Amino acid sequence: MIRTLVITLCTAFLMNGNAMAQKSTPTLNDLVPGGATYRSIENLYGLQWWGDACVRPDTDSLFIVNVRTGKKSLLTTRKQVNAVLDAGKLPNLSHFYAVKFPWAETDEMLLTLGNRYVVYDFGKKEANVLHTLPEKAANMDFCNESRRIAYTVGNNLYVDNDRLTDEPEGIVCGRSVHRNEFGIEKGTFWSPKGNLLAFYRMDETMVTTYPLVDISTRIAKLNTVRYPMAGMTSHNVSVGIYNTNSKGIVYLETGDPTDRYFTNISWSPDEKAIYLIELNRDQNHSKLCRYDAENGKLLATLIEEEHTKYVEPQHPIAFLPWDTTQFVYQSRRDGYNHLYLYDTNGKQLKQLTAGDWLVQDLIGFGEKSKCLFIRSTECSPLQSNIYRVDSCGKRTLLGSADGVHRGTVNASGTYLIDTYTAPGVPRNIHIIDTKKGLSVNLLTAENPFKDFDMPAIETGTIKAADGVTDLYYRLIKPAGFDPDKKYPTIVYVYGGPHAQLITGSFQYNAGGWDIYMATKGYVMFTLDNRGSGNRGLAFENCTFRRLGIEECKDQVEGIEYLKKLPYVDGNRIGVHGWSYGGHMTTALMLRHPDIYKVGVAGGPVIDWKYYEVMYGERYMDTPESNPEGYGQSNLNRLAGKLKGHLLLIHDDQDETCVPQHTLSFMKACIDAGTYPDLFIYPGHKHNVRGRDRIHLYGKITRYFEEHL
Amino acid sequence: MIRTLVITLCTAFLMNGNAMAQKSTPTLNDLVPGGATYRSIENLYGLQWWGDACVRPDTDSLFIVNVRTGKKSLLTTRKQVNAVLDAGKLPNLSHFYAVKFPWAETDEMLLTLGNRYVVYDFGKKEANVLHTLPEKAANMDFCNESRRIAYTVGNNLYVDNDRLTDEPEGIVCGRSVHRNEFGIEKGTFWSPKGNLLAFYRMDETMVTTYPLVDISTRIAKLNTVRYPMAGMTSHNVSVGIYNTNSKGIVYLETGDPTDRYFTNISWSPDEKAIYLIELNRDQNHSKLCRYDAENGKLLATLIEEEHTKYVEPQHPIAFLPWDTTQFVYQSRRDGYNHLYLYDTNGKQLKQLTAGDWLVQDLIGFGEKSKCLFIRSTECSPLQSNIYRVDSCGKRTLLGSADGVHRGTVNASGTYLIDTYTAPGVPRNIHIIDTKKGLSVNLLTAENPFKDFDMPAIETGTIKAADGVTDLYYRLIKPAGFDPDKKYPTIVYVYGGPHAQLITGSFQYNAGGWDIYMATKGYVMFTLDNRGSGNRGLAFENCTFRRLGIEECKDQVEGIEYLKKLPYVDGNRIGVHGWSYGGHMTTALMLRHPDIYKVGVAGGPVIDWKYYEVMYGERYMDTPESNPEGYGQSNLNRLAGKLKGHLLLIHDDQDETCVPQHTLSFMKACIDAGTYPDLFIYPGHKHNVRGRDRIHLYGKITRYFEEHL
Repeated sequence: MIRTLVITLCTAFLMNGNAMAQKSTPTLNDLVPGGATYRSIENLYGLQWWGDACVRPDTDSLFIVNVRTGKKSLLTTRKQVNAVLDAGKLPNLSHFYAVKFPWAETDEMLLTLGNRYVVYDFGKKEANVLHTLPEKAANMDFCNESRRIAYTVGNNLYVDNDRLTDEPEGIVCGRSVHRNEFGIEKGTFWSPKGNLLAFYRMDETMVTTYPLVDISTRIAKLNTVRYPMAGMTSHNVSVGIYNTNSKGIVYLETGDPTDRYFTNISWSPDEKAIYLIELNRDQNHSKLCRYDAENGKLLATLIEEEHTKYVEPQHPIAFLPWDTTQFVYQSRRDGYNHLYLYDTNGKQLKQLTAGDWLVQDLIGFGEKSKCLFIRSTECSPLQSNIYRVDSCGKRTLLGSADGVHRGTVNASGTYLIDTYTAPGVPRNIHIIDTKKGLSVNLLTAENPFKDFDMPAIETGTIKAADGVTDLYYRLIKPAGFDPDKKYPTIVYVYGGPHAQLITGSFQYNAGGWDIYMATKGYVMFTLDNRGSGNRGLAFENCTFRRLGIEECKDQVEGIEYLKKLPYVDGNRIGVHGWSYGGHMTTALMLRHPDIYKVGVAGGPVIDWKYYEVMYGERYMDTPESNPEGYGQSNLNRLAGKLKGHLLLIHDDQDETCVPQHTLSFMKACIDAGTYPDLFIYPGHKHNVRGRDRIHLYGKITRYFEEHL
Repeated sequence: MIRTLVITLCTAFLMNGNAMAQKSTPTLNDLVPGGATYRSIENLYGLQWWGDACVRPDTDSLFIVNVRTGKKSLLTTRKQVNAVLDAGKLPNLSHFYAVKFPWAETDEMLLTLGNRYVVYDFGKKEANVLHTLPEKAANMDFCNESRRIAYTVGNNLYVDNDRLTDEPEGIVCGRSVHRNEFGIEKGTFWSPKGNLLAFYRMDETMVTTYPLVDISTRIAKLNTVRYPMAGMTSHNVSVGIYNTNSKGIVYLETGDPTDRYFTNISWSPDEKAIYLIELNRDQNHSKLCRYDAENGKLLATLIEEEHTKYVEPQHPIAFLPWDTTQFVYQSRRDGYNHLYLYDTNGKQLKQLTAGDWLVQDLIGFGEKSKCLFIRSTECSPLQSNIYRVDSCGKRTLLGSADGVHRGTVNASGTYLIDTYTAPGVPRNIHIIDTKKGLSVNLLTAENPFKDFDMPAIETGTIKAADGVTDLYYRLIKPAGFDPDKKYPTIVYVYGGPHAQLITGSFQYNAGGWDIYMATKGYVMFTLDNRGSGNRGLAFENCTFRRLGIEECKDQVEGIEYLKKLPYVDGNRIGVHGWSYGGHMTTALMLRHPDIYKVGVAGGPVIDWKYYEVMYGERYMDTPESNPEGYGQSNLNRLAGKLKGHLLLIHDDQDETCVPQHTLSFMKACIDAGTYPDLFIYPGHKHNVRGRDRIHLYGKITRYFEEHL
């Protein structure tokens, strides 16, 4: 039985597709990024804080925005800056959008001109080259305090002109490790004053290589990636600390790094200690550890967490600016990600936030008023709203109560740049007084699709297959919707952890292709099943050790709901998704061949044993310890069940979900005597971006048109 | 204008599809090799000469056949042989089909039992192990005279228990070289008495590797092949001679082997000299050379041939058994492959055969009557018939004047085992007295499709696009043919050098899939265009430096012919082919998008610059010396012309026509905004054989059914 609570949140300009029939129909090129006529939403690129001042760049001018009135005053022009650059025989700026203002206390801005880092002094009208990097420099990490720069060339790490490491192929330094899991996004971490640089060193020599083939050269060449597959030998990570004064390096004395993860690096404010969260390979036991930054010795283990399924630390600790003995620690231990205040002895002082909603980000502090700023789902699981949290834990909403907000606070924490979108709001930008809540509007972006006849989009909830949990869906009705007609319906699915497809952002986060297909006469449907993001720990981890099983059950509930809609043609239901959504698409086609007639699976996981250790084992454990789970979720075993038309698309440079998934499925279907279709995008990685994305969606569209 | 001369050669049992409507329809499994119910044609496996006696093996018995009467008498039983093998603790024989009789003068047969070579003595009723080879032995070459055996393990060569070479990876010994072009099929060549072994050594270390990926392992692994692409650096070949008595090796002193081909190795009857045909990289100048087998020095250059397009030596010289100073040399110098008699001074004594037909094989000699036996196209370009050629050059046809014959003569050349098929003859085997022409029949195979309702097959000729040349076509009419209906039509094409699709063999050489599609209601058509095999030099080399261009013109003449047939639906024409035929299919779809609605191209050449040096440069020269030709034939440049449905199929282990062809075409189509389809067969090489072949044809059939 389906218990539905349909919340129709549509705004007028989205709903009135019919009434505006004189408008034109958007093309893929209009709707999809990469398209020749893509309608991107207006933005204020490069809007940023310069200490407590707000800088607003333009192509030809740079403005200071009055944070109370929103009025802008000219800071300089491109002509002026380029004249100074010319004098210094430096390349010109072609716009101001990428300039930086790292120094609140000086009259300078930082320019990146090719491989040069240039400091532009407004007072002296001078431009001085701070760094000239080698051409192959990557992973640049500029330290605002010391003005040093860390970067990598190949697999080794450099600071300024000094080469820090001299490792052979297979050992990489200064880059992100553990395949960007556990919130890791980079490999270098400057200490607060910039005297020390912590960095990752990852030894991958023991990891089996996966051969990808690049066909763009005269004769195809090998692109080897180190890819530790579930249950196989993984890499070893260590953390080094480089002292810019002594030029020495010490490595943290963590003991044998085999089968351990070192995540969420942060510094003590005095630079004397470094903190990180260690995790065992089973990912069910985390430890917040403090190491001595000078000699690398373990000083203390402050916080430990265990869970029968998994713990997944994703946020480094953050010290209070007004009390260097206290820090904020994030944990899902009560079921939702919340903030906890600890002291440096590891004693929990208080739980700062609580409730059946979750903190998404700690975005900053207000030092004077001793408050902090967060983004959370407190208003709605579909939303991200910004709150000021004071020292008693009292929360004050900043900005509108709808939509998906992102924000940055100024140096003092007195003002917030708040950028948000909502179902009917393409993009609004405000500056908000964090104390009084007053705001000035800097941008109300025009609806980029205002000239088009756009389909109606609605959302609502149905019950999950457990009969209890509310799941959000999004439904897009075809252009020129006629309730008496029967429409073919396509489900766009992802379904995996971390992601959420239905949000309270512009057009409820509907993708361009979904809207395009609606304009072509399809009902487009999406359901965020259990296991997906932003709904808390229990919602997510009910899929543990059997990925895809509960998720498919929930998706079938979505179909039951759809089939009750009088305008849905239950005999013409298709499904499409990418990556985890490719797995879901293939799984739904095979497990429910009588429901889904046509599927297009992009970059799918077919067998979790071919997926990598970090992500895969968190949810599935290893093939050795969980043979039943791996067996149940191995879609190659279901290849014989294929009945409808199923197109698998893979990229030949996919190093996230390697081509073996899709090719092994082809083999399984050949063995089973079933007939999937296949397409490969050469030169792309785990999705198809840029200009070729239009071809991708053209291909997918044709497939549904031909077969659904 | 089409000038047609339709020769309808159909036999009754093939024509009467309609009249036998009560019969069942064959399935792909019945018609295609690899199918579970595949109807192979009856044969006498292992039928062979033992000196002048004819041995006929059976599963359980071994017979001697009286060559005059055809009557068989029991030689031994499997029970008897296995009892002897048991006594020697040797594995048993499971049938007699693979036993050999290399020694006319002894009472022995040679058995291969796993990795053991065993001599079975009929008189002594003894079985003795002659050789036990290592498990990884390959390329076995047994010398009847010396009873020694040459073989390879990895890239090195062995004789008996001696390792002859010790080369690192990248240098291969004892295997076929030059990618099996120039008639090369093996890498070892025993001297007439077995004292010496000539062998190829190929240094590929300078050849760029092509990475193929094998996805059948736990984590996909690399399968690197050395693949010299047109215009790129090629391998170096040398010829070694191993002396089994001194155990020494000398290499022929050929000089720098760079960009040279060493082909068609043969021995002088006295073992003192070795002959080979050398060819320059341009392949327009060949030399028959004699080297001293003892010291490797060049003794003489006997015959040189040059041609403005190419020469292609494919046949080693053969010495007359009755005069060791004379040998037979084969050449296309007068436009057709014919036999020439030379003496060892390099003097041409006479042209043995001549005419506007060609010699396909020299199959043996009759020593006493000083005659030789050939297969030729003298009866018809579609046929292979066996002739006895006497010393005056007089030819006598042996066996029937129709069909495609293969034969072996006995030691004295007095009798011939003649195996042939003809349009209405599945397989007949005779023993023929080569002098009197009398024959006895050993087998008249039953038609394996006699229980099925088979479609009618006819052949005929049309004029090529040059308006002069006759081209043969084959046309299969749909089952239950109704002349008043309009049928969709599929062209099955190859079109490249050496091959001939329409022959006078069983069912005119029609493939199982062609027949299957006819039973499903398609007209199936094939045309051997100019450039294809068995029609002589000018017919073949008119495509020089622009492969595919003339061939496509001829194929369009075939379409013009088809369109005039009242029962062909000119709006529903499809095309399918593999390899060169994959190139043709793709080229036809792109050059004539208004003719061909649907195409399926298997393992296609897309751009000749991705093809290998030996075959590619013969016909195309190099990309550097022939940029116009490579440009014209590069189908990636035509990707934007795609209009119909085109499916490209490639094998992921294709080391003949590497996957870069098909994948670069996908990229070209993505860039051009066109939409081909793709499928990949994992684990196969340049075609799909075995059980998976049924899936392949299922896939192809579905594609035409969906789109044509």
